[in-house]
Amino acid sequence: MNLAERYQQVRQRSEHICSPLQTEDYVVQPIEDVSPPKWHLGHTTWFFETFILKPYVSAYKEYNTEYNYVFNSYYESVGSRVIRTDRGNLSRPTVIDIYSYRKYVDEAMYHFLCGDIPAEIQELVILGFNHEEQHQELLYTDIKYILGHNPLFPAYSHEYKATHFERAVGAEFIQMPESIYEIGFEGEGFCFDNELNRHKVYLNAYQISPSLVTNAEYLEFINSGGYHDFRHWHSEGWAWVNANKIESPLYWYLIDGHWHHYTYHGLQPLDIHGPVTHISYYEAYAYAAWKGMRLPTEFEWEAAASKFNWGQRWEWTESAYLPYPGFSKAPGAIGEYNGKFMVNQKVLRGASEVTPPGHSRATYRNFFQTGLRWQFTGIRLAK
Amino acid sequence: MNLAERYQQVRQRSEHICSPLQTEDYVVQPIEDVSPPKWHLGHTTWFFETFILKPYVSAYKEYNTEYNYVFNSYYESVGSRVIRTDRGNLSRPTVIDIYSYRKYVDEAMYHFLCGDIPAEIQELVILGFNHEEQHQELLYTDIKYILGHNPLFPAYSHEYKATHFERAVGAEFIQMPESIYEIGFEGEGFCFDNELNRHKVYLNAYQISPSLVTNAEYLEFINSGGYHDFRHWHSEGWAWVNANKIESPLYWYLIDGHWHHYTYHGLQPLDIHGPVTHISYYEAYAYAAWKGMRLPTEFEWEAAASKFNWGQRWEWTESAYLPYPGFSKAPGAIGEYNGKFMVNQKVLRGASEVTPPGHSRATYRNFFQTGLRWQFTGIRLAK
Amino acid sequence: MNLAERYQQVRQRSEHICSPLQTEDYVVQPIEDVSPPKWHLGHTTWFFETFILKPYVSAYKEYNTEYNYVFNSYYESVGSRVIRTDRGNLSRPTVIDIYSYRKYVDEAMYHFLCGDIPAEIQELVILGFNHEEQHQELLYTDIKYILGHNPLFPAYSHEYKATHFERAVGAEFIQMPESIYEIGFEGEGFCFDNELNRHKVYLNAYQISPSLVTNAEYLEFINSGGYHDFRHWHSEGWAWVNANKIESPLYWYLIDGHWHHYTYHGLQPLDIHGPVTHISYYEAYAYAAWKGMRLPTEFEWEAAASKFNWGQRWEWTESAYLPYPGFSKAPGAIGEYNGKFMVNQKVLRGASEVTPPGHSRATYRNFFQTGLRWQFTGIRLAK
Amino acid sequence: MNLAERYQQVRQRSEHICSPLQTEDYVVQPIEDVSPPKWHLGHTTWFFETFILKPYVSAYKEYNTEYNYVFNSYYESVGSRVIRTDRGNLSRPTVIDIYSYRKYVDEAMYHFLCGDIPAEIQELVILGFNHEEQHQELLYTDIKYILGHNPLFPAYSHEYKATHFERAVGAEFIQMPESIYEIGFEGEGFCFDNELNRHKVYLNAYQISPSLVTNAEYLEFINSGGYHDFRHWHSEGWAWVNANKIESPLYWYLIDGHWHHYTYHGLQPLDIHGPVTHISYYEAYAYAAWKGMRLPTEFEWEAAASKFNWGQRWEWTESAYLPYPGFSKAPGAIGEYNGKFMVNQKVLRGASEVTPPGHSRATYRNFFQTGLRWQFTGIRLAK
Repeated sequence: MNLAERYQQVRQRSEHICSPLQTEDYVVQPIEDVSPPKWHLGHTTWFFETFILKPYVSAYKEYNTEYNYVFNSYYESVGSRVIRTDRGNLSRPTVIDIYSYRKYVDEAMYHFLCGDIPAEIQELVILGFNHEEQHQELLYTDIKYILGHNPLFPAYSHEYKATHFERAVGAEFIQMPESIYEIGFEGEGFCFDNELNRHKVYLNAYQISPSLVTNAEYLEFINSGGYHDFRHWHSEGWAWVNANKIESPLYWYLIDGHWHHYTYHGLQPLDIHGPVTHISYYEAYAYAAWKGMRLPTEFEWEAAASKFNWGQRWEWTESAYLPYPGFSKAPGAIGEYNGKFMVNQKVLRGASEVTPPGHSRATYRNFFQTGLRWQFTGIRLAK
Repeated sequence: MNLAERYQQVRQRSEHICSPLQTEDYVVQPIEDVSPPKWHLGHTTWFFETFILKPYVSAYKEYNTEYNYVFNSYYESVGSRVIRTDRGNLSRPTVIDIYSYRKYVDEAMYHFLCGDIPAEIQELVILGFNHEEQHQELLYTDIKYILGHNPLFPAYSHEYKATHFERAVGAEFIQMPESIYEIGFEGEGFCFDNELNRHKVYLNAYQISPSLVTNAEYLEFINSGGYHDFRHWHSEGWAWVNANKIESPLYWYLIDGHWHHYTYHGLQPLDIHGPVTHISYYEAYAYAAWKGMRLPTEFEWEAAASKFNWGQRWEWTESAYLPYPGFSKAPGAIGEYNGKFMVNQKVLRGASEVTPPGHSRATYRNFFQTGLRWQFTGIRLAK
Repeated sequence: MNLAERYQQVRQRSEHICSPLQTEDYVVQPIEDVSPPKWHLGHTTWFFETFILKPYVSAYKEYNTEYNYVFNSYYESVGSRVIRTDRGNLSRPTVIDIYSYRKYVDEAMYHFLCGDIPAEIQELVILGFNHEEQHQELLYTDIKYILGHNPLFPAYSHEYKATHFERAVGAEFIQMPESIYEIGFEGEGFCFDNELNRHKVYLNAYQISPSLVTNAEYLEFINSGGYHDFRHWHSEGWAWVNANKIESPLYWYLIDGHWHHYTYHGLQPLDIHGPVTHISYYEAYAYAAWKGMRLPTEFEWEAAASKFNWGQRWEWTESAYLPYPGFSKAPGAIGEYNGKFMVNQKVLRGASEVTPPGHSRATYRNFFQTGLRWQFTGIRLAK
Repeated sequence: MNLAERYQQVRQRSEHICSPLQTEDYVVQPIEDVSPPKWHLGHTTWFFETFILKPYVSAYKEYNTEYNYVFNSYYESVGSRVIRTDRGNLSRPTVIDIYSYRKYVDEAMYHFLCGDIPAEIQELVILGFNHEEQHQELLYTDIKYILGHNPLFPAYSHEYKATHFERAVGAEFIQMPESIYEIGFEGEGFCFDNELNRHKVYLNAYQISPSLVTNAEYLEFINSGGYHDFRHWHSEGWAWVNANKIESPLYWYLIDGHWHHYTYHGLQPLDIHGPVTHISYYEAYAYAAWKGMRLPTEFEWEAAASKFNWGQRWEWTESAYLPYPGFSKAPGAIGEYNGKFMVNQKVLRGASEVTPPGHSRATYRNFFQTGLRWQFTGIRLAK
């Protein structure tokens, strides 16, 4: 598939994700972390307009000069912007306006990509694909939050179907020997700057579980009083549990004595065989401590990744999100992509049921603050 | 006009106000005080369903039992409710759902009102009309806030036209003698409970302006440094000015050295002959103090109201919102209408260009907290 | 007693109030409203230095130029100042430093007052006496808060003795006829600017209780669920009760099923015959509503004051703190004394067991925000 | 020196640090992180009483049962406690009370330590010494904050003298080869649990500076606009700079165009040859980025520590505070010492001019949140 075709495919996928929505669902922002779907659709378009069309297509005429202010996310280099918490206060541009904007930019991009593109710009375009794929995952998680926090609990789509995963039931922990391991991306194809440089890490012997912790297993933690015993928690996690009165994963509701969870099909009885999901790092850590185990580091995870199935949940690791040896930021706005977030966040490895196919890889480093739960997060134990 | 016809007229007016809106404009809530237009449309409908149809129409079948939770505003007697700040987080029910809800309730109400209605229920229905008219004014002011805080500054409707008012230019202050005056509603027709009982008030001699303070006059206050001189302000007002960095009325923008204001026609050069609008009580007080005058009390205002034109702006008075002698709350939820707000608010008298025709009267007591500005507020001086 | 003698008497009384304190008790500020005792001692001294000695005694040499910054309370005209919440963060000047400062200023003042003082300055000095008396009451209430919120509940002084009040047990409500009453200060002697001008008020017939609500009576309100029934409360009061989880007056503790309250003698079993104390306006209003009665207005209170004993508690009235007809602020810093607080506060009438003898009078207007409880507040019913 | 003598020495040192203080200086808590000196004196005493005397000395009679509530810091296992922000609201126990408490516990401890102590209890006692030494450093830094934020800027003691350090001026960066290094404590003597287990780390070749960044060098960063250029900062650091309006290190004041800093001798002209101090991690990172370099990891620091002078400042590293391989918490309250803080903090290595002599070592891991500045923090560059 050439670049122009791949462009169309990526762009259509974003719109396909939104196709079950009502116009109103595109607009709201119930918490700061969740952006309105129409903002995602506009922002990913602005990315191609700002970083490809405006600098490299001389005949290109900007669609609307005020959109930079509306759709810039966090690029300080590219001017001022609507503050993040205000995204849900904007009724305009409308959904129709934004689809027109997409159409306009898509035509210009397609035309441009059918031409002869220098390698350096090709790289930027491919970065744009990966960027849009990241927002596709956010579209899924943000839509879940918007509908799942509505008192009417509407379904997103009854046609939604998560990929099926075989569980390695009762399987033994994988034994990994003490050794020097090579960590980080190498080879052809795209990777983010935070996966570089590939470098050596010395690991002691360790064991890692071949499967994710299930809802049934997590229920044992709840039922044994895990949310009420400070000994399992970080000091900061304990404060978080108490300040937010957390008693279960996000989207769980105890109705007449039976646990339910909100899913893309609406409110459903809890699937106890499924992997526990929508838990914070604090909860993942506390669960592991309660079990007498721990979370793997991102290096342990990557070194063993070929030995287990992954891709169902983003797995919290014990590793802080830090630069690899030799990491350097690209110059200009693109350099703001990853490096400036490398403090007070944790690395998650793997992928989730809403990660676009082919987007992730064994060296991929996702990262979030320790209290966030609206992503499809999960737990893999180590010891 | 009979009750059924009046019902239709009131209800159609709410929908007419919303007719220039895009679907997205119905959804957002940029600040706590501003409710989404779709919420107003649903809430006024819920009012008739809850207080008329459910108790008095035995065959009536509730439209959706979950709507009580969504559309209850502040009636503690009528169950729990979405907290006010969350109204803008709800994408569902959709605008179409709410128009269907209106249609369903309207048919039941019309049918009911064509029958023989006991006087006591007639009173409740008329309260419902007045309630919907209050929300019509809020629709206008909330729409202005939603569009006026969008960085694209869209116009509401180019057909919008404020009523024209003759200004009593250069006119002398009206002299009012020391006397006992009768204050409060009397006679036939509807009034709110807070306008009762009619009672005697002793007033010293005073003078009151026949006209409202203009934008030109208020600009003098700004240009003389009024926002930066604590001597004109209440201690609390001075803290408010500094905490919120207030430098002008709401919706005013200084662009390239020229003052503009956002109007229903979009951003326009400031109309310096128009009455100053969208100012808080703190600003009204400070302006009067700077002029060496004061605001009238609500009693002074009412005693003189027949001697000047009023109805262009809600006029801040110096009076706190307190019960009249003999005031008593109605039993049940209707009793929550006014009495429970009688603390730490100020009375505003008059009406505004977006008050429904015939809704207000000389004894009408509007009330708001001292820092609010999104209503069409104005200033009349006394001494 | 001449001015110089009266000066000494007033000044010694402040120090006498502090005599049971440990050095540490002078320093802390557990909440914004409560100032450290050493701050009160310094601030009242600063008042005489700033408003008498510096302007009128040419030979006077300022004690320490930095004390203006430390001891100015809220006089914007007199330069910048330590923000109120920071008073408890200042270990210096020490208690000994402040007593030295008092001695220095007292000698200069005494010397000055033994001379021939123009009437206008005499007035300022007498204002200074009244100002210091107000801070004497605050010393008592702030000390109570500081010791009463210490987990060791230390007594202030076992010699403390409240004035005894005869209760008008079971007495009938006083009947007051509909009439025009004269309200406000008149005659010789000192009054604050907010007691002027004396003016006529028209009152409907009303009844007012000859006695204060007792702890026993208030317990009935608590035991009948008064704190959990929204119907008795203002909307704002209900939010206050829930946000602060209020279940009883300040300083009440339920220990092993028995109510106790913190007093100047330490933690004691609740004196059920005593007047209910340390309640907010919200609670006073709710109690009255629960009783089917109301609070008197300040005008009703003053018109009837000669017919009952008052002085045991500051009595919340239904009146907002507003200017009387013809009220005007003095020029300069002294004009900041009262007028700038006339918004969103309630008037309290009477006096309390810690008000300096002779400080209050029937026309005296005390005022506080509606949620404050650390003063000796109480309830008198009207209907 | 035997255990009993060492006990006396450690305990006397805490009191010696406080000897220049006024009583009032012992009481205040200007920010949450800074505890009142009297609290430190009581808390370190409580530690010996709670963990040694009460469990192991059967004849010991607790000094005051309420002190557990007052002086517990964060040990959830040992009952409830005064919340941290309230420490500065407690005037009682007084300073004299606390010195009596120290004397009482010291006598019991000395008596106990003169006896025959099992090795396991000896270890606990030595932990108590190290604990008290940590609070000695906090006494120094908290006293600096208390006096340095007083508008009178009092000196702590003119006899205070920082250890002199030779600067390696103009020296080359130290070259460290790619290799496996051993990290963590080994050998005899005391270490904290977080320094274990000693383990292998693979490091790429790197260079590390033999000296700390000076005030003169940091001034270049300020003067080149470093605090106003987002490119040098983490996204979170940039938000921190703007929210807190940071323009220089803590304690720096620009007076009439000349930089001063608050020191234990009072306000002094900035010592431009001294090491930059009182900067947050965010500032350390930004400075390094502006220089085109980076901070060392804690492993790089430890591997090279024998090649440079350290001990003047706590040096921010790029490493997050995480458990070493095989780290395990001790059972019971002692296990709360370190492990529960291992999230969202950064490791600092070295020691400072106010660290007790002999307290630190090359494997010592200090840790703080990224925005804190009141410790004697500094910067060493790597590349």
